[in-house]
Amino acid sequence: MQKCNQKNASELLSTSHIQPSSIHLEINQDIFRQGMANLGAAVNVITTEGPAGQAGFTASAVCSVTDTPPTLLVCLNRSASVFQTFKKNEVLCVNTLAAHQSTLSTVFGGKTPMSERFTLGEWSKLVTGSPILNEALVSFDCEIVQSMSIGSHDVLFCEVKAMQQQSGHNALMYFNRNYCELQTAC
Amino acid sequence: MQKCNQKNASELLSTSHIQPSSIHLEINQDIFRQGMANLGAAVNVITTEGPAGQAGFTASAVCSVTDTPPTLLVCLNRSASVFQTFKKNEVLCVNTLAAHQSTLSTVFGGKTPMSERFTLGEWSKLVTGSPILNEALVSFDCEIVQSMSIGSHDVLFCEVKAMQQQSGHNALMYFNRNYCELQTAC
Repeated sequence: MQKCNQKNASELLSTSHIQPSSIHLEINQDIFRQGMANLGAAVNVITTEGPAGQAGFTASAVCSVTDTPPTLLVCLNRSASVFQTFKKNEVLCVNTLAAHQSTLSTVFGGKTPMSERFTLGEWSKLVTGSPILNEALVSFDCEIVQSMSIGSHDVLFCEVKAMQQQSGHNALMYFNRNYCELQTAC
Repeated sequence: MQKCNQKNASELLSTSHIQPSSIHLEINQDIFRQGMANLGAAVNVITTEGPAGQAGFTASAVCSVTDTPPTLLVCLNRSASVFQTFKKNEVLCVNTLAAHQSTLSTVFGGKTPMSERFTLGEWSKLVTGSPILNEALVSFDCEIVQSMSIGSHDVLFCEVKAMQQQSGHNALMYFNRNYCELQTAC
């Protein structure tokens, strides 16, 4: 993991590498992705297990929706190899990674065969049967209760049925196409 | 902003304040929120302006959906005072905050009257007329193209029509109910 150069916000602001803002009035895929790279996000390994088999992938497009009932969402490309497995199993677990777990992110986000991915890490199960990563910051064990197609992706709305949480770890974050830790021990 | 105590992940792991994981098999609002506090997220000021007036609020429930067409989503409580303004205007801007902008987050996330909120910061407009925060890391100027009700919230699907971006700043993040910066200069 790339380490901090210890510049704080005020130092960053006073240095000459601050670029004047760029404005885009036509948004193509590249410009959109470049903008989204500035929206820092947690890194999650999303897993499932059921009649359609076991699968897992890395995602940052995860978001809390409502606490009544406790619901989150996950965005998944319909052309992803794992898509049908998740849709058919109708369950998933969002495992939010700690700062020391970037290797898991790489393995579940890369070309490693599905059968080898789960040999890394320690896994258990709670309610739905989806793999729970034991050292994750938090694992949300969910039923997929609704979905909606938007462009290339499906948004999966997931009701949380069980949870495992571990306090005291720092979080793994993704920002400007790099893995980062948080500077505060929040 | 609370500053770093400079513990890295390996130090955190070796110290005794790592708690054994806690398991919850029944998920109420408090447990869900406690879990979601571990899902670190960027902090955004969401703005709108149009026939229904001007409004803005702070949100971390923002997520990329697809780049074809360039689309993001914002979750908004239907009981929020700003809800009708956003729904009627059918446009919004997601302004992703830099690390030095936590005061803006507090003002737009608190009880400050709407008429006073926009006196803080410098604002412009791009395509939709929604207020663009000039020093934001990135501003996504959007049309709300679809919405979906899930429990207490509406998920607003927003197509990006214009974008303003500024490189070189660190990001403001929210984790464990605290504002944080990123440790790496990503």
